[in-house]
Amino acid sequence: MATASRGSSRSRSARSPAPEVSVLRVGHRPGRDPRLTTHVALVARAFGARRLYLHPPDPELATRVGAVTARWGGDFEVVATDDWKSLLRTFPGAVVHLTMYGLPLGRTLPKLARHRNLLLVVGGAKVPAELYRRSTYNVAVGHQPHSEVAAVAVTLERLLGLPRPVRPGAARQRIVPSARGKRVVGEGVA
Amino acid sequence: MATASRGSSRSRSARSPAPEVSVLRVGHRPGRDPRLTTHVALVARAFGARRLYLHPPDPELATRVGAVTARWGGDFEVVATDDWKSLLRTFPGAVVHLTMYGLPLGRTLPKLARHRNLLLVVGGAKVPAELYRRSTYNVAVGHQPHSEVAAVAVTLERLLGLPRPVRPGAARQRIVPSARGKRVVGEGVA
Repeated sequence: MATASRGSSRSRSARSPAPEVSVLRVGHRPGRDPRLTTHVALVARAFGARRLYLHPPDPELATRVGAVTARWGGDFEVVATDDWKSLLRTFPGAVVHLTMYGLPLGRTLPKLARHRNLLLVVGGAKVPAELYRRSTYNVAVGHQPHSEVAAVAVTLERLLGLPRPVRPGAARQRIVPSARGKRVVGEGVA
Repeated sequence: MATASRGSSRSRSARSPAPEVSVLRVGHRPGRDPRLTTHVALVARAFGARRLYLHPPDPELATRVGAVTARWGGDFEVVATDDWKSLLRTFPGAVVHLTMYGLPLGRTLPKLARHRNLLLVVGGAKVPAELYRRSTYNVAVGHQPHSEVAAVAVTLERLLGLPRPVRPGAARQRIVPSARGKRVVGEGVA
């Protein structure tokens, strides 16, 4: 494991390619309001994660997120996960538990950026204690209560940068950025 | 209004103090699951906004967020807002509507950072069309569907930086960052 953390996270791209990032949501509750987990999934997709592991599985949520990807592009996937401990054991990279009790993101970023594969883990209200032990890093995006949606977004943004515009032709629909109002082009757009 | 955008957003602090930022949540639905709006409020607080204007008012939510501030410090407030259009007219600064249809955040940041007061506006599922017209800027944190929680977090982080640790004595409770497990110090902590 790397121990020194010289230099700024902004200079990462000069040294090595960006890591491939996956997200694991532990403790989702199918049947309760699914909006928070849906937001975690959409944020993971929009900010450049490759996949969301969802524990426990929720086929309806996976279908809804799949429909977004079909329309807006990319190859993001939702992977049903029955056993998150086994995923942590076998994941071929560093496990990064996002928790307000962890070490500051700003200080940890240079280490994270050196890995080729990262798994960002967010829990629900009750996080199993062993998640702290089984993770490579426990990392805090600020030490105040806020939101797993925000923690995933800011960590991905600091690792991979702000999301880039979609190239023409790369998705069925894409947005043309506008100072006022909405402009969408592509298939099935009136 | 400033039009040129020379230099990086990172050099803002060399030129002028950080803006004071407020957040307006339009179209909250009291009685439905309040977790998403609670996350918007906690993110606004944790990432350095001064207040959340909440439309329509939700006294229960304001009380819950107030309890977080009493315990974890700072002077963040939730302001009940019956008339968001009047707030937009009278706000003494720039109104920044966060929408995936807007202009890229990365390109807009240098302009935003020059204002002394900013109001970040996020809507619910149905955003009134006039919000686009009445805003000074329509800004996209990526042009893909994701989450108002993430949009507020990333915009605040890019404007004000990552949240700083709380100074000892500045709050009833504070977290001591740890590589493993949870460490909280202060009043009423076992």
